[in-house]
Amino acid sequence: MGNKKKNPDPAKAPVIGIDLGGTKILAAVIDANGKVLSRFKKKTKPEKSPREVISRIADCARGAAEVAGVPLSSIAGIGIGAPGALNPLTGIIALAPNLHWKNIPLKALLEKQLHRPVFLNNDANIGTLGEQRYGAGRGHQNVVGIFIGTGIGAGIIFNGELYEGARWMAGEIGHIPLVENGPLCGCGKKGCLESVASRLAVVRSIGESVKKGRKTILTEKVKDEDLSHVKSQLLADAWKRKAPLVVPALKEAARYIGRGVAIVITFLNPDAVILGGGLIQALDNEFISCIKKEARKESLAPLYKGTKILRARLGDDAGIIGAAAYARIRLRKK
Amino acid sequence: MGNKKKNPDPAKAPVIGIDLGGTKILAAVIDANGKVLSRFKKKTKPEKSPREVISRIADCARGAAEVAGVPLSSIAGIGIGAPGALNPLTGIIALAPNLHWKNIPLKALLEKQLHRPVFLNNDANIGTLGEQRYGAGRGHQNVVGIFIGTGIGAGIIFNGELYEGARWMAGEIGHIPLVENGPLCGCGKKGCLESVASRLAVVRSIGESVKKGRKTILTEKVKDEDLSHVKSQLLADAWKRKAPLVVPALKEAARYIGRGVAIVITFLNPDAVILGGGLIQALDNEFISCIKKEARKESLAPLYKGTKILRARLGDDAGIIGAAAYARIRLRKK
Repeated sequence: MGNKKKNPDPAKAPVIGIDLGGTKILAAVIDANGKVLSRFKKKTKPEKSPREVISRIADCARGAAEVAGVPLSSIAGIGIGAPGALNPLTGIIALAPNLHWKNIPLKALLEKQLHRPVFLNNDANIGTLGEQRYGAGRGHQNVVGIFIGTGIGAGIIFNGELYEGARWMAGEIGHIPLVENGPLCGCGKKGCLESVASRLAVVRSIGESVKKGRKTILTEKVKDEDLSHVKSQLLADAWKRKAPLVVPALKEAARYIGRGVAIVITFLNPDAVILGGGLIQALDNEFISCIKKEARKESLAPLYKGTKILRARLGDDAGIIGAAAYARIRLRKK
Repeated sequence: MGNKKKNPDPAKAPVIGIDLGGTKILAAVIDANGKVLSRFKKKTKPEKSPREVISRIADCARGAAEVAGVPLSSIAGIGIGAPGALNPLTGIIALAPNLHWKNIPLKALLEKQLHRPVFLNNDANIGTLGEQRYGAGRGHQNVVGIFIGTGIGAGIIFNGELYEGARWMAGEIGHIPLVENGPLCGCGKKGCLESVASRLAVVRSIGESVKKGRKTILTEKVKDEDLSHVKSQLLADAWKRKAPLVVPALKEAARYIGRGVAIVITFLNPDAVILGGGLIQALDNEFISCIKKEARKESLAPLYKGTKILRARLGDDAGIIGAAAYARIRLRKK
């Protein structure tokens, strides 16, 4: 970690926040007020070796520092939000299916390349932290962030601090049982929230209707009637045009998300539930209204009344801003 | 609060823990090691005025002190676990249907009578705290206690501290939506966990079969075929004798409780889930096994593996022991 005496003051010096996704890596230099000073982006290329992907991450960090005109030695620390199951203390990613990674000591490997302290946490925790500190959740101490995209994950902040569970696995709201004998989920169980309300669940449901001979505007946009690669934006366009099959499938997803939100509100009594992720970002406020309607119906009334349901505000920046905030928290605790 | 200089040392002096229930009031003097030095019990008589019930609570506190041979002036403080919605800071019970209470300043009224600081919290929180500090949850920092009786409530402990939510309403697991279009719940919603898995839900389900002409051993024990007053012990006896109607109704309840436990495990990754309350206390370990079986099936596998599902150990003492522990926590924070 170099000579401690030379370390920049973590309360004032800029940090680097990195959002490591299955498609792209985004790095940013962020100052002590949460202001983004620079950005640097590369494709992840997860088909390459972990070593090469990690070099790309290091390139992004160096690139962001260069664009900001800040030498790496003036950076207090580096935070990273990564997908998958990981240990924030050892900085080892146990399993990240999106990256085809298993037991990769990301923290150690990056510290070797960048000579700055690196702090790792999962993307849903990092996104929730970003929204709570600098986005939709500002001023709230008890916040649950639910991110709905290809899958569904959540981050939990209680009494102003990240709650990570007994083994850093808290927040797997995508895999709570929601529908008895529902569709098979990627995790092997049936009827998980993710199996009925993620982007993949929505396109699968539309695909089943297509197989039965029903028509949708989406099939014109994809090859082989394979809808699994239909992106959230395409779904959002069809939703706006009130396209058959798409609207009922998304309304059904909203209803299930609403039931999940009702479970969170009734059991945990948070100040705010923040909805984010690709599907939420692409869709309009009418979709959020559908979620709220079901959440109101299924929550205990005084609890619903006391909880704000908010749309995430930082968009794609939640990852870098949250990662920077996380680095500062860990540096302060050192 | 009298002269501060005279106040006994909260780290060493005994405290009084009180369990205020709809049927009985139990008070105990408990020393700094959590040892019960004395007990004193009275009927609650909720049909009388709040003033009279509060006098009975004060009598119990004085009685317990006398039995222990400890003058009230040597008691560091008094903790109370009470049913219903309340504010632990003001000590006002907003609503306690069991007691027919609305906006009763229990803390202030008791302090006037007893001249000791009084600290109030709800019974599920207090019970969970008792089990975590002195019962089944000892040594665990992240614990969810689920209490199943006439209704269903939960207490949540994260990082060793009570999590009470944004407005002290966390833990209402009895009212999370579990069954779409399920039975009508006392809260007005349909298909809450409580509506399918509490003692009342079980006897209602048995009662419906009886109305259809089916026989059960339980009808011999009650008047007018009204099963709503069938106590947990009677259900447990019938369960042991493998009585028709009773066994399937309890197995169905266990399955739903298991789904609720799976939601807790998968979303919150606690160290332990503790099962307590009248129904659990009365029933044997086979009932707990039924709950575990469903919880394993419906939890993410690594999360289930890392969580202990435990039977509560303090029985009826969880209330007094938890209330005493709570008084100490609040005294320390003063």
